[in-house]
Amino acid sequence: MSDSVAIAIDAMGGDHAPRAPVEAAARISREKKIDVLLVGDPEVIRRELGALEHDMSRLTIRAATQAIGMAEKPREALDQKPDASIAVACRAVAEGAAGGIVSAGSTGALVLAAARHIPLLEGVKRAALAAVYPTRERRTSNDRFALLLDVGATVRCQSEHLLQFAYMGHAYASVISKVPSPAIGLLNLGSEETKGDEILTTAYRMMKEAPGLNFIGNVEGNDLPKGVADVIVCEGFIGNVSLKMAEGMVETFKHLGEYAFKNKLAWKLGFLLLHSGLKQLKALTDYQEYGGAPFLGFERMVIKAHGRSGARAIGNAVKVAAKAVRGGVPERIRGSIAQFARRG
Amino acid sequence: MSDSVAIAIDAMGGDHAPRAPVEAAARISREKKIDVLLVGDPEVIRRELGALEHDMSRLTIRAATQAIGMAEKPREALDQKPDASIAVACRAVAEGAAGGIVSAGSTGALVLAAARHIPLLEGVKRAALAAVYPTRERRTSNDRFALLLDVGATVRCQSEHLLQFAYMGHAYASVISKVPSPAIGLLNLGSEETKGDEILTTAYRMMKEAPGLNFIGNVEGNDLPKGVADVIVCEGFIGNVSLKMAEGMVETFKHLGEYAFKNKLAWKLGFLLLHSGLKQLKALTDYQEYGGAPFLGFERMVIKAHGRSGARAIGNAVKVAAKAVRGGVPERIRGSIAQFARRG
Repeated sequence: MSDSVAIAIDAMGGDHAPRAPVEAAARISREKKIDVLLVGDPEVIRRELGALEHDMSRLTIRAATQAIGMAEKPREALDQKPDASIAVACRAVAEGAAGGIVSAGSTGALVLAAARHIPLLEGVKRAALAAVYPTRERRTSNDRFALLLDVGATVRCQSEHLLQFAYMGHAYASVISKVPSPAIGLLNLGSEETKGDEILTTAYRMMKEAPGLNFIGNVEGNDLPKGVADVIVCEGFIGNVSLKMAEGMVETFKHLGEYAFKNKLAWKLGFLLLHSGLKQLKALTDYQEYGGAPFLGFERMVIKAHGRSGARAIGNAVKVAAKAVRGGVPERIRGSIAQFARRG
Repeated sequence: MSDSVAIAIDAMGGDHAPRAPVEAAARISREKKIDVLLVGDPEVIRRELGALEHDMSRLTIRAATQAIGMAEKPREALDQKPDASIAVACRAVAEGAAGGIVSAGSTGALVLAAARHIPLLEGVKRAALAAVYPTRERRTSNDRFALLLDVGATVRCQSEHLLQFAYMGHAYASVISKVPSPAIGLLNLGSEETKGDEILTTAYRMMKEAPGLNFIGNVEGNDLPKGVADVIVCEGFIGNVSLKMAEGMVETFKHLGEYAFKNKLAWKLGFLLLHSGLKQLKALTDYQEYGGAPFLGFERMVIKAHGRSGARAIGNAVKVAAKAVRGGVPERIRGSIAQFARRG
């Protein structure tokens, strides 16, 4: 059928593997028109599947004899385990066995395996890992989210890389969030056009002139949690530190909470009452719960699900991957970058 | 007397100028062995002083006919107003009329005026604006704080600049916080020595080998609010974005609070009960309340007090500036940088 799409799942990756990824695959096989390629130890996968309702006509098992743990060093692990599930899955996807891959395993291993095995789109210079988080406005519009990219795949960026990240974010938000013309911001030290170094001022000019981009100008650190833009572009170093800073703030707040529990009755009550509010704040940093974090710039869709993902979260990531493949996210990225190149 | 020290105050800078800076000067003149050079419109200063108890033997007025507002563009304003209080004060300090300057005016104007008029210390390549914030441990140790530098004065840094920022933070924390050997961290994407680009790995090596530095290695974004180090070093771009990100998180939480007030009774109660806890979290981003933010690397002490500062906060900044001058912060920075240069 015309909307048929296949997604590979790393059956051995994540805190709850193989149970959670296999359960996600079983559910998807029954409920969705998505073919699933389950990559991992066939014996283990079949044993897990045995206990679950599933539709074998939509499931394929691809054997991988090795697996990479969350605590392993990504580069060494990939060098020593050529048959690791994440590497086998990326190769299968590169060869066209599926249009995308979802893994809840080590971020570093996924980023490296994708970079090694899946070709970058024609014209793309660097890949970008995106953090997806709900914005304040999310309360009024159901699937409104913001994308921050890159958050660690490309440490330092040239102006052209930042422009390409803008096009990647534009394509992804257009397809997944269905915002017709996503607002794009450039993370900088201030809002004026002249802020930052030459890399930033040049990126500003390129984005302003870029066809098809709804560029709203520079945004600042305090704009990140506010949702002033649908897509915020920055180099990987700054995206990584900012995101972890937000995590640290949430941790600090929780720490205050623990302190409160030991000390002040008023604080203790306050934290109990605020539980749902805190969960909402925490969602800012638990971006991978929202269908996973896309790693963009490749010929196939690559989605990192949170390490703690259960079957439901992995299933959501698979649905998002399928939606992105059906919506032609990679082709859109390639098309807009080619259009920008022809422009001059 | 031997511990005599003079500090210049920008009498026209800040949301509550001239009242707050003049009141701070009046109090200091009565209570502390600190001479104050009040820079601004003499008529206005004398009128404010008229209503306040003060010791004129410790006060000197230096005339400046112009002033720069908080909303003015710093570069244009300084070019058009050569007799602005902030410029006059920086020139007076450079000429030796005082050992340091405190301003609650525009950060941009202070940073530019200091850079134009006060010489960098011998050997120092770039200046660094530091954010000062209390750490979690602060509850057990009274004046424990952490320093994050640079937060916006030097957008991009070479490895040597980062090393010099480490020495600046070391000197300031040693003198003001009285931590004998402050722990120094390098902000990076991960804790391993090999993380980041060449600028970061080289800075890591230099700090590890630097005589007199208690370098604890790389720290990550989520370590910033935790107080894992007394001094955390980074380039201005990343320091600026991280700090503003933290401000944005606090704003978002307050926004959740407002939402709660309109909607859920339980949340409303929770926020009321948590008031003092929230204030503690907010202190993370209100760094300038803690004696101001030092702008380091110059032959004189330069301290930026928060724009909202009242007389008490400006007074605290003046005391900190005097303590830094007495403790020889600039000389310590020059000495350690010279020692590092001789090392090779």
